[in-house]
Amino acid sequence: MRNEFHDTLDILVADLAKMCDRASAMMHAATVALLEADAEQAGRMRGDLTQLSALGASVNDRAYRLLALQAPVARDLRTVVAALHIGADADRMGALASHIARTAARSHPLRATPPELTDLYTEMGATAVQMADEARDAVSSSDAALAERVCADDEGMDELHRQLFTRVMAPRWMHGPLVAADMALLGRFYERFADHAVEIARRVYFQATGAAMDSAPRPA
Amino acid sequence: MRNEFHDTLDILVADLAKMCDRASAMMHAATVALLEADAEQAGRMRGDLTQLSALGASVNDRAYRLLALQAPVARDLRTVVAALHIGADADRMGALASHIARTAARSHPLRATPPELTDLYTEMGATAVQMADEARDAVSSSDAALAERVCADDEGMDELHRQLFTRVMAPRWMHGPLVAADMALLGRFYERFADHAVEIARRVYFQATGAAMDSAPRPA
Repeated sequence: MRNEFHDTLDILVADLAKMCDRASAMMHAATVALLEADAEQAGRMRGDLTQLSALGASVNDRAYRLLALQAPVARDLRTVVAALHIGADADRMGALASHIARTAARSHPLRATPPELTDLYTEMGATAVQMADEARDAVSSSDAALAERVCADDEGMDELHRQLFTRVMAPRWMHGPLVAADMALLGRFYERFADHAVEIARRVYFQATGAAMDSAPRPA
Repeated sequence: MRNEFHDTLDILVADLAKMCDRASAMMHAATVALLEADAEQAGRMRGDLTQLSALGASVNDRAYRLLALQAPVARDLRTVVAALHIGADADRMGALASHIARTAARSHPLRATPPELTDLYTEMGATAVQMADEARDAVSSSDAALAERVCADDEGMDELHRQLFTRVMAPRWMHGPLVAADMALLGRFYERFADHAVEIARRVYFQATGAAMDSAPRPA
């Protein structure tokens, strides 16, 4: 019985890592769509999000059943409760990536972002993908050190987010209020995606160590 | 033993309702600060948010202990798991309210919002407060019908959010890109606050009925 429980738990954790991986792939595709004015990515991403949410719902159901039928304690309990939260965070990351792709689609055939911001969005996209990948690896290995790395990377994202605002708010901004509003929202989507990766990392840290990762910045 | 467990559960649920109530009060204060260009509310709200988060952490610890020591099943298990999620949602609602107050503080001594949007922000604030109040009442009464009302109100918030975007994106917009960016973010903060109230309502619905509230709109 105990082995069967741990097998089920292993599959649950593997599915959570898969969710992080899919959120990462969605973020990569969304950033490409944004920078290449790809109108069709948003449509494709709707299917990806449906799949991601379905996997999240399945993780949720199985975590519930484990709580009800096996009454896990200590580290096993922390793993199951972490699964409930991580599934929700990864699902939300997919939703934020699809918001980015939708912004790209709305501006088609024009690019949503002015050319002088391409470097920033490229970096924000790469940082977001890296954080999701590290969160995935932290989840599958229960590695507290990896979890801390996700939080360290979030400082890079915060800095990129600040730079974006500085550029949009500069007196030489010449793309009008509509584009400024879109840039503010895009910046927020990237930042929140990263925040959810941090939340996942914090859950892994707690699950692995039994202690909170207090030093990490709290999502804004 | 069973009675002691249910007493602990009752206190937990009362604390979750208190968290919703505080998030509601914070949203009310933030909207007043926004419309009256009150620079000091953001500072006061930092203390409120610290208190709200501390209550959330305490709810989380107690829910964990109940899972570990009592191994609840059926409706009791749903209540404890819902508590883990509802605490996180209410905490986030407080953070979003404090983002609104910070936007007000940044523009001081000017008002962050143009006068012709006062009616919209007044209504968005009132809707958000009402949804948080209904979520609070749904939590404390475990009332599925009340939970459904929160979701119905969210349609009103979505409509207000659309109106805000229409006005900011109109060709006659004359407040420049900076204010447009702030309005986009403010709109998002109100909308997300409402989405978390909906999430709480969905948890209550599931906790009360054992079934998902499928008809409700998914947070965007």
